[in-house]
Amino acid sequence: MAAGSADPHGVAVAFHPAGRTIDIVAGESLLEGARRCAIPLASSCGGAGTCLSCMVRIDAGVVPPASAADRQLFSPKMLADGWRRACQVWPAGGCSVLVPARSSAAQSVRTLPGGDVRITPDPTVRTWRIRVAGLADDPARGLDDRLLDAIEGAGAARCLALDPDVLRAAAELTGRGPAKLIAALRLGELVNLLPASRRALALAVDLGTTSIGAFLLDLRKGRSTAVCQAGITNPQVSLGGDIITRLNLAVREPGRLQDLQRLAIEGINRLIATLCGQLGVPGTDICDVVIAGNSAMAHMLLGLPVDGLAHAPFAPVLRGATDLRARDLGLAVAPAAGVHLFPGIAGFVGGDHVAALLALETRGLEGSLLLLDIGTNTEISLLHAGAILTVSCPSGPALEGGEITWGMQAAAGAIERVALHQDLLELQTIDGAPAEGICGSGVLDTVAALLGAGIINHRGRLQPGYARVRDSGQVREFVLVAEGERNAPAIVFTQGDVRAVQLAKAAIRSGIDMLLQAAATTEAAIDHVVVAGAFGSYIAIDSAVAIGMLPDLPRDRFHQVGDAAGLGARLATLSHPQRARAAEIARQARHVGMAGSASFQRQFISRINFH
Amino acid sequence: MAAGSADPHGVAVAFHPAGRTIDIVAGESLLEGARRCAIPLASSCGGAGTCLSCMVRIDAGVVPPASAADRQLFSPKMLADGWRRACQVWPAGGCSVLVPARSSAAQSVRTLPGGDVRITPDPTVRTWRIRVAGLADDPARGLDDRLLDAIEGAGAARCLALDPDVLRAAAELTGRGPAKLIAALRLGELVNLLPASRRALALAVDLGTTSIGAFLLDLRKGRSTAVCQAGITNPQVSLGGDIITRLNLAVREPGRLQDLQRLAIEGINRLIATLCGQLGVPGTDICDVVIAGNSAMAHMLLGLPVDGLAHAPFAPVLRGATDLRARDLGLAVAPAAGVHLFPGIAGFVGGDHVAALLALETRGLEGSLLLLDIGTNTEISLLHAGAILTVSCPSGPALEGGEITWGMQAAAGAIERVALHQDLLELQTIDGAPAEGICGSGVLDTVAALLGAGIINHRGRLQPGYARVRDSGQVREFVLVAEGERNAPAIVFTQGDVRAVQLAKAAIRSGIDMLLQAAATTEAAIDHVVVAGAFGSYIAIDSAVAIGMLPDLPRDRFHQVGDAAGLGARLATLSHPQRARAAEIARQARHVGMAGSASFQRQFISRINFH
Repeated sequence: MAAGSADPHGVAVAFHPAGRTIDIVAGESLLEGARRCAIPLASSCGGAGTCLSCMVRIDAGVVPPASAADRQLFSPKMLADGWRRACQVWPAGGCSVLVPARSSAAQSVRTLPGGDVRITPDPTVRTWRIRVAGLADDPARGLDDRLLDAIEGAGAARCLALDPDVLRAAAELTGRGPAKLIAALRLGELVNLLPASRRALALAVDLGTTSIGAFLLDLRKGRSTAVCQAGITNPQVSLGGDIITRLNLAVREPGRLQDLQRLAIEGINRLIATLCGQLGVPGTDICDVVIAGNSAMAHMLLGLPVDGLAHAPFAPVLRGATDLRARDLGLAVAPAAGVHLFPGIAGFVGGDHVAALLALETRGLEGSLLLLDIGTNTEISLLHAGAILTVSCPSGPALEGGEITWGMQAAAGAIERVALHQDLLELQTIDGAPAEGICGSGVLDTVAALLGAGIINHRGRLQPGYARVRDSGQVREFVLVAEGERNAPAIVFTQGDVRAVQLAKAAIRSGIDMLLQAAATTEAAIDHVVVAGAFGSYIAIDSAVAIGMLPDLPRDRFHQVGDAAGLGARLATLSHPQRARAAEIARQARHVGMAGSASFQRQFISRINFH
Repeated sequence: MAAGSADPHGVAVAFHPAGRTIDIVAGESLLEGARRCAIPLASSCGGAGTCLSCMVRIDAGVVPPASAADRQLFSPKMLADGWRRACQVWPAGGCSVLVPARSSAAQSVRTLPGGDVRITPDPTVRTWRIRVAGLADDPARGLDDRLLDAIEGAGAARCLALDPDVLRAAAELTGRGPAKLIAALRLGELVNLLPASRRALALAVDLGTTSIGAFLLDLRKGRSTAVCQAGITNPQVSLGGDIITRLNLAVREPGRLQDLQRLAIEGINRLIATLCGQLGVPGTDICDVVIAGNSAMAHMLLGLPVDGLAHAPFAPVLRGATDLRARDLGLAVAPAAGVHLFPGIAGFVGGDHVAALLALETRGLEGSLLLLDIGTNTEISLLHAGAILTVSCPSGPALEGGEITWGMQAAAGAIERVALHQDLLELQTIDGAPAEGICGSGVLDTVAALLGAGIINHRGRLQPGYARVRDSGQVREFVLVAEGERNAPAIVFTQGDVRAVQLAKAAIRSGIDMLLQAAATTEAAIDHVVVAGAFGSYIAIDSAVAIGMLPDLPRDRFHQVGDAAGLGARLATLSHPQRARAAEIARQARHVGMAGSASFQRQFISRINFH
C-alpha cells in the first residue's frame, strides 16, 4: 500500500500540526503507522516502550484505552486528557492526534559554526575551464575524443577516464558547434561537466547520530567558509533516538538496515535540496562529496552489516576510508561525483572523530591536549608527546536528552540552562519558547545545580524535604516546571534520570583516566581540553566539572569548538593534502582500552559517585 | 498495468506456441501488445509496416479485418486463412494467434566458435588465495584492515581500495574466526571475494545487433576456450531488426533509448543465467566483464544518446574504451566487477571491429589483409604496409535477411543454401526443418544462382519466361517454395529483394575500392581476405564473388573465421596486455572516407550493376 493512501481495513488517524491523515492498519501502533507514512515522530527507545519521547495527545475521535504501562507513567488527569505514548496505542477507531513539538522528529536543528580557517585550495576534485570543439573535419571522432582534447588543451592534468554519466551530460551540454564548459576532474577522471556560467560546488557532510550538518563549498575558494550551510535532525531518529537503539533494530529486524540507509540518504538529499534551492542551482553542480560520520552512521549509510558494532568487541566491517560514487548511494548530486568517507580509528571511534582531530590541527594549540566528542558514545583522544591515544566510552543517550524522562532534542522549547539560587529555580529554554522538555545541556545543569544545593547527595540520591522534590508513586522526582506553571503535565527530573547522568559521566571520566594512564601522565599536565560537537558546544563547563565529568582545570584551558567534525570535512573537501593527512591521523592514532575491558570497568565503578 | 495482467478494457489474445494470453488494450496493435508483455515477436522494420517479419496467423476467435496494406501483400487465400502482420492488426475481440517460427524473436542462435588460442594468462583482474584473520587481539580493527592484511600476506599487488559491495560480501563470507577466500583484484582494487572452494570467472560478450554471444572464462586458465558459451537473439530485435530502425526509434520516441538499454542488459543477464546455471554457480562468481559491440550497441547499452549516430556524419558520443561497474548497468555478476567496453575507431566502426582486429593478430597471417565484418553496417579494414585503414559501409539489412520479403534470422527452417542446376532448384534449410523463410547466406546464394542462370540480368532485372518466375500483381518474383510444396504461402524472392542485395553488395565493394585507393594498392595485392561475424561464417564465398560483393581472388586467400569479435573479447578478458593492444589498434587505425562522401557515392553507383 502506498504511504498514506486509503485502506478500507484501516482506521483514519489525523496528525496535527502536520495536517496529514493516514490509515492505521490492524495490529499497527500509532508510532508504526506514523513511521510507515513518514510522519516525523521522535522515538528515543525505538518503540520499545522504555521512554516518553513519542508522547502524543489524542484530542478527538475514538480515544483508545491506555496501556498498563501508560497507566503507570501518566497521572489520571493526563490520561483523561488523552495523553498516551504513540508506541502504546493501537487505534480502534478514527481519531485526531496532537504531536507536541517535543515529540516531533522534524525540527530543524541549530547550525553550529565549527570555525573558519584559510587554507590553500588544492581539492581532490579540480576544475578547468574548457572549450569543446564542434564537429569539425573528422566528425566521426567521438565526443569523448573532443572532450579529452579540450581538457588537455586547458592545461589540466591528464584525463585518464570518462564516466558514461559524464558523457551523457556532455551530450546534453554540447551540440554540433563548440561549447564552453567547466570540467571537474577527480584524480585523472572526469566526474562532472557544467556550463561555463556556473560554479563547481562540493558538499561536506557531518553525518551525526542526532543531526546532519551540510556545507556547500566553492571548489575554487581558499576559505573553509561554506557558500551556505544547513542542519536537520537525522531522519533515522524515527527508528530510534540513540545509536544503540538503531544498531539493535538493524540486527534484530531484517530490512531495517536498508530503512536506516534510506533515511540517512534521504536526510542528506533533503539538505542538498535546501542548500541548492537557496542558491538556485541544480544538485548536479556538486562535483564532490565528503562525509564524516561515526562508525555506525558510516556503516548504515553504506548498508554495511552492523552486527559487529552492536556488541563487544565492537568490530566494524569498515574502519578505513572508502570512496564510492554518488550514484551508488543515490545522492542527488552529479552522478559520477566521488563520495569520500573519512577513515576511522577503531571500533566506535569513527570518521567524525578523525575529522575533529584534523580540524583541531588548524587551531595551533601547543602541549598536551584532550579532545572529546560527547554523545551516546563518547570518543576521546589524548595528544601527548607526539602520540595520539584514543578511547571510546559508552556514555549512553542521557547527555543528548535521550532516555531522560522529559528529555528532548536541542530544539525550540528545550530547557537548556538550569540554575538554582537558594530556592529560586532559573530556567532558560531554546528560543525562549514555552518549556516542552529538557535537552542535554539542561540535563547537565540540572544535576550540577541539584548537587550544588545538596538536593542530591554524593551517591546520587535525591533527598526528600526540599522544595520541588516529591514522590510520584514509587518515583522520586524534582519538579522543573509544575503542572500549574504550564497547564500541561509537569516537567520533572527523576531519580532514574540522575542515575543515567551518573553512568554517562562515569563512562566519560573513566575514558579520560584510561588515556592518562596509557600516556603515563596526569590531569594537571593537560594544557587544553577541547570539547567538540553539538552537545559539547552548549554545555556549561562549570556544570560538567561540578559533576565530575571533566577534570577540574583552570577554565581557560577549556575550548568549546562547535562542529569540529564539520570543519574537518570541509578541510578534506577543499584540500587533498588535508584528506591525506586525515588518513595519516587515523593510522597514527592508537586505540587504548575498551568499554568491555576489566580495567575500564574498575575505573568506571570508581567514578560513578559524585565526589 | 503489469505485463500480461487482466485489463477489463482490453481483449484477451492467446499467443501460440508461447501459450500465453495477454490483454490488448484499445488502440494497441498486436505487435505493440506483444512487445509490452515481452512475447518475442520479430519486427525487422520496427513496426513501420514495411516488411513481413511479424507475420502471424489468427486461428480462432474474432479475426480482425485485414488492413489495406495487408490486402495488397497477402493473397486472398492467405487473408482467408487468417494471415496478417501483427503491426497491422488492432484486435476487436478475443482471438488466438499463431506465431510461426520465422516470426518469433525467441530463437536461440547458432554458437560460433571463432577459434581458440593459447595465451599467457595475465588478466586485468587477478585472483589470490587469501586467509582472512579472525577477530584477534585487536578486534576493534575493521574487517577491511584484516582483508588488506590478508591480501598483502598473499603476496598480491598492493590493494589500494575496497569497494563497499565487496565489504558487504566479505561480512557475509567471514565470521569471528579466520576464513579462506579468493580475492579478485582489478588494478589495485578489490572487486570480488569468493569462497576458496570456487573458481573466479570472467565474462566476455560479443554484443551484436542480431545476436549476443557470451563466454564464461576461467581467470586462471591460459586458453581462450570458454568454460561454457551461449548465444541468443538480441532481445532488441522486438524493437527493430536492424540497427538503423532501432536508432531511428530511439531518436524519434522518448523513452525508447531506455527500452533498448534495458533489453540489451536483459539479454546479457539471460546469458549469464544460462551459463552460470550450466555450471551451477551464482552470477557473483563473475569478477570481470568485457564487452565488444558496435558503436550503436555500445551507446544503447550505456544509455548514451544516439542522435549523432542516426544521421551523417555519424558522430558518436563515445568512441574510445570505457570502464564502469557491473552494478551501474545492473548486470547480474559481482556488483563491483569492472565492465570494459572495447574502444572503437570512428563513427560506426566500433569495438566489435577492433576486437576482430585484435583476434586477427593471433592468426599469424602475413602480407596485405582485408578484414570484413558484414552486417547492416559493414566495417572493413585493410592492413597494408604497417597501416590500418578502415571504412564503414551502409550495407543495409538485406544480407542479414532483413527487409527481404521472406527474410528471417539464421534459425531452424531458414533456407541457407540455394543452388540451381538447369531447372533443378536445390534448397537446404537450417537443421533440415521445413522451410519458413530465407536467411542471409540463402539470400546471397539465391542471387548468385539466378545470376548464373541468366534469370537476372547484369542490371539486376528478373527475366520473364523462366520456370519459377512469375508476376504477382505488380511484383515479379522467383518462387523458392511454392504454395503447394508446403501447404502455406509460397516463399518467394522478389525483384525488390534483388534490388536490396544489389545495394548491399555495392556498398561493401565500394568500401573495398576506397580502402585500396587510400592505400594506393590493388585487389590482386591482397594476400588474405578475412570474413568475420555470424553472416560471414556461413556465406558461400563463391556466391559472394559471383555477385561482385567480394573481389575475385584465389579461393585459398579467403578465411571465414567465425566470431572474431568474441575471440577478441576473450583475449582482452584473459590478458591485460591484449586489452592495451586493442586500445593501440583503435588509436592506430585511420578512418578513410565515409558513407556520405561524394567519392563513396560515385564508387557506389559504379558497383550497383552485376558485371
